[in-house]
Amino acid sequence: MPADKTPVDDLRALTFDVFGTVVDWRTSVIRQCEELAARKGMTAEQRGDWGAFVDDWRYDGYMGGIGRVRRGELPFQTADALHRAKLDVLLADRGLELTEVETDDLNKAWHRLDAWPDSVAGLERLRTGFTVSTLSNGNVGLLVNMAKHAGLTWDCVLSAELTGAFKPEPRCYLRAAELLGLRPNQVMMVAAHQRDLQAAQSVGFRAAFIPRPDEAGPSRDVDLTPDPTFDFVAPGLDDLARQLGC
Amino acid sequence: MPADKTPVDDLRALTFDVFGTVVDWRTSVIRQCEELAARKGMTAEQRGDWGAFVDDWRYDGYMGGIGRVRRGELPFQTADALHRAKLDVLLADRGLELTEVETDDLNKAWHRLDAWPDSVAGLERLRTGFTVSTLSNGNVGLLVNMAKHAGLTWDCVLSAELTGAFKPEPRCYLRAAELLGLRPNQVMMVAAHQRDLQAAQSVGFRAAFIPRPDEAGPSRDVDLTPDPTFDFVAPGLDDLARQLGC
Repeated sequence: MPADKTPVDDLRALTFDVFGTVVDWRTSVIRQCEELAARKGMTAEQRGDWGAFVDDWRYDGYMGGIGRVRRGELPFQTADALHRAKLDVLLADRGLELTEVETDDLNKAWHRLDAWPDSVAGLERLRTGFTVSTLSNGNVGLLVNMAKHAGLTWDCVLSAELTGAFKPEPRCYLRAAELLGLRPNQVMMVAAHQRDLQAAQSVGFRAAFIPRPDEAGPSRDVDLTPDPTFDFVAPGLDDLARQLGC
Repeated sequence: MPADKTPVDDLRALTFDVFGTVVDWRTSVIRQCEELAARKGMTAEQRGDWGAFVDDWRYDGYMGGIGRVRRGELPFQTADALHRAKLDVLLADRGLELTEVETDDLNKAWHRLDAWPDSVAGLERLRTGFTVSTLSNGNVGLLVNMAKHAGLTWDCVLSAELTGAFKPEPRCYLRAAELLGLRPNQVMMVAAHQRDLQAAQSVGFRAAFIPRPDEAGPSRDVDLTPDPTFDFVAPGLDDLARQLGC
């Protein structure tokens, strides 16, 4: 930590963005699509490009859906519901017919995401010094199932679902601090996404940036140059633990 | 499990009452009061009977406070707030003068409760087969701190605080199932208190009774004869894990 940064003496909790920051959603969901295609004996035409399928699911379905909720065009709903609405469209567009059970199971691919290689051990180290919680736009059930799948241990599972509003709405961060019984400056948001961190900072959280150059697919160009106001920048959670003295 | 009970094939999650069911609040808080008395060099008169002090704190302050909130005589507030309001009265009644830091720290004795001897290992076994969550009237921050203190590992920390209503209000249980993404009959409440279990059953939860004959102090006589409608009765969490095949 540079000498001119705020000291972290009273830092008590770390709240984590999850999709992209802790788990590799893109590789995990593409793999599960490929597995389904193999089980179903899909033709090459039906399979198409799973990368494009998953990117559309994520960026238009989930991120776009969050934007529509935030603009008041849709009522608040869970990540599961946003995922499912887009999945139905994607399957129809591609002419893929799945049973309800298969569709629901494919929608839950987002509950079965694999951790980045540094995440499990990094979180374990960080838990020795801090309360370690999710603070994700994913719903509670999704996050709980994902943790069991990926072997992640959280002290607490906090979600946008608890406030009925999605990050980066300020109340998501403020409610998380309140639920943890802490002041905002006793909490640090940890994320691979600068906008999430800046929103957390705007209500008094500290910020740790974990750039994940492999998160987005090849079709997206993301600027990973850190905002100089972030308290920490680390290439992984293990390195963040080291910087925090855990 | 008796042969005539509902099968538990689709049981997915266990939600736990915490005070009394998982942790021994009475012994833990009395011990912390005695430690404070020793640190402060209190006279015998000032010390009085810590068992009576803690029972009054628990039964009138916390349980009574919950009743007042449920009857609309007080606004919803956290367990921490209910504990603190009663603590201020108890300290004044006994003529004990503590600093704000000491008072706040004593109030947080409820964050530092020790587990019953079977709890830590029992929860670990149960986590191998089920999602294991709190469902307590304690606030989230209290439960998170307690878990770290007592070495309890939860998959999720759910609390009455998330609904703004205390158990046994039906919405506490229904919201817990909803947040876990489950139907009520996929969830089993685990508690040392029959009224909590009966309220959970009334909205479709299953019920496991863990009688804790050592929970209450000598001044209280609690009927631990199990309601025959409960799905499981076990003397501890390790035995419950055994009965559930974990």
